[in-house]
Amino acid sequence: MTMDVTFLGTGSAYPSPHRGASALVLRTEGDCWLFDCGEGTQTQLMRSQLRAGRISKVFISHLHGDHLFGLPGLLCTISLNTNPDPQQNLNCVDIYGPRGLRHFLRVTLGLTGSQLLFPYSVHELEPTADQSPEEGQLSLEMTAESGPLHPQERPGRIIPLDVSSDCYLLFEDKKFVVKAFRLFHRVPSFGFCIQEHDRPGRMKTEVLKELGLKPGPLYGRLKAGESVTLESGRVVLPTDVLDESIPGRKVCIFGDCSSVLGEGALSLCHGADVLIHEATLGNEHREKAVDHGHSTPEMAAAVACACCARKLVLYHFSQRYKPSSLQKEGEEDDVSELKRQAEEALQDSGVEVTLAEDFLTLPIPLRRPR
Amino acid sequence: MTMDVTFLGTGSAYPSPHRGASALVLRTEGDCWLFDCGEGTQTQLMRSQLRAGRISKVFISHLHGDHLFGLPGLLCTISLNTNPDPQQNLNCVDIYGPRGLRHFLRVTLGLTGSQLLFPYSVHELEPTADQSPEEGQLSLEMTAESGPLHPQERPGRIIPLDVSSDCYLLFEDKKFVVKAFRLFHRVPSFGFCIQEHDRPGRMKTEVLKELGLKPGPLYGRLKAGESVTLESGRVVLPTDVLDESIPGRKVCIFGDCSSVLGEGALSLCHGADVLIHEATLGNEHREKAVDHGHSTPEMAAAVACACCARKLVLYHFSQRYKPSSLQKEGEEDDVSELKRQAEEALQDSGVEVTLAEDFLTLPIPLRRPR
Repeated sequence: MTMDVTFLGTGSAYPSPHRGASALVLRTEGDCWLFDCGEGTQTQLMRSQLRAGRISKVFISHLHGDHLFGLPGLLCTISLNTNPDPQQNLNCVDIYGPRGLRHFLRVTLGLTGSQLLFPYSVHELEPTADQSPEEGQLSLEMTAESGPLHPQERPGRIIPLDVSSDCYLLFEDKKFVVKAFRLFHRVPSFGFCIQEHDRPGRMKTEVLKELGLKPGPLYGRLKAGESVTLESGRVVLPTDVLDESIPGRKVCIFGDCSSVLGEGALSLCHGADVLIHEATLGNEHREKAVDHGHSTPEMAAAVACACCARKLVLYHFSQRYKPSSLQKEGEEDDVSELKRQAEEALQDSGVEVTLAEDFLTLPIPLRRPR
Repeated sequence: MTMDVTFLGTGSAYPSPHRGASALVLRTEGDCWLFDCGEGTQTQLMRSQLRAGRISKVFISHLHGDHLFGLPGLLCTISLNTNPDPQQNLNCVDIYGPRGLRHFLRVTLGLTGSQLLFPYSVHELEPTADQSPEEGQLSLEMTAESGPLHPQERPGRIIPLDVSSDCYLLFEDKKFVVKAFRLFHRVPSFGFCIQEHDRPGRMKTEVLKELGLKPGPLYGRLKAGESVTLESGRVVLPTDVLDESIPGRKVCIFGDCSSVLGEGALSLCHGADVLIHEATLGNEHREKAVDHGHSTPEMAAAVACACCARKLVLYHFSQRYKPSSLQKEGEEDDVSELKRQAEEALQDSGVEVTLAEDFLTLPIPLRRPR
């Protein structure tokens, strides 16, 4: 199964003509999941190779405007471009994010009279008290379940922290298990871990031929890990006819955060194929970055290292850093310097560093069989 | 005084890479007033010659997302680019729009923990019942004054309709009187009339010389329309020394609407220098346009004609109409056809037609003295 990540916005604080506000899409065989949705994300989507109508799930890392203000408009535009055929049973768009997100959508869609052609559901993550410094606390009425649901809203869950694993189980389907973990920023912030299930190895056709097995239901049972008994009475174990299993890939997407990493993040993100982490400001601005709840390349590198990630992708750059293609020689605030800083911190670790840019698509290749 | 209008977004329904969502700026000697603020307006501002920090007033014609979703982000970005010097007494940004706008900003800024460095105030226009078909009615709790003000919010007014004139007085200052008028769309919609005060004519320097008058306080009193008595006892009337007064300019900006025009709009917009009106779809799609509460070029032309406007500017085009610069020969949905349709409807009327495009700046020249 192909899998890739496309960055739609790699700028922090606000969108600009050369860097969109935060948004990226994880794509797996036509299914698109959107992570964060800053203002202008729908326009960035139109500029990209992706199709907004394919977005089936949305994940919001935290309730800052540069990660959220594009969501109501995106939902409206997807709806405008949806076939209004009432026969078609449209799938519910699941939206995951911190407490307060449901009220935000209810009010923005409600006050603007926005009717969607598809249902949506908001599943809220319950932050812990230590994630909210005083300034980041929402008043009760902002998060309260006041008023009726939006006409297209379906009841969503409140997802509490699983204290023993220090993480949140968002959902599990046939292909993936998706969890969230706590981050520490000025307001409650979360990261997301997308873990693909391991896949059975390929059928050993030579062995199957020898056993006289032909494609059919027995194949499926063996692939699913069951033993089968042949007419001859011989028991065939899956391991007899299957190559070694292919480990699932792991993609970890961090929301805005400063250095502190919880236990949950550390164990959940262990061995990530791709770890996507913010690097708002260069190492030389560490104090300012931390003051604002952000990270430097060195801090992002430390996280990647602690998680034994294979690849670290930096994004969420201050708008002072122009994309490399617009950078003039000798100009200050060169974004490639951020990459150099992360590489310096990761030397000899084997972690590869990539600098995200708007519209960069990063393939996530299958792992080798164990 | 120079005065011009810059279009930041001329597309309807949603922003696209070739047409921003609704937004335009009226500029008068450095002061900028923003009319509507669709998603992406802040990025369009950055692409333009205008400076977001100059925006002192915002007017929202109606609460549809393509006219509003850019406002919270724009306010945040203006604030980020504001000098945080606490000594500086920052002016309050006045925001005018329909009932419900205050709650929208309170919730979007509140939930995202957006602190602004300047105060703002929302003045709400009270729509009349006939402006709200059933689907466009807001529930009580959406417009109720629930909860505390946002920390940077200053109490705003509720502006009722002045029934006798069928319009709303928003404010009057030394240079302008600004009123709103009712429009009929799927939700309560408003237009805005910016009327510049008449200005005294130029001083007749020859006459002043003859009278022995030198620049000083007497000049000011004569300019302000007072008579003055010279030492010789001679009474000088303003008309003795002033050229004829220069009539103030009038700019009328219509929100989304379908053909119906109230009495207020008609008399308020009479003789407008520039009348800016939506033309979402071509004449051949009149039924669809009206169904959605929108206008065709012919309908916009009828309004301009009824108001005896000097210039009609069309904007708010369906995204099916690409800008002329991107139009290929023989392609359907040519935006210049919309201009032709309006011109056809206005032939012999003397009303000039202009097609707005993103980033078009339209000077509004001084009128000739009466």
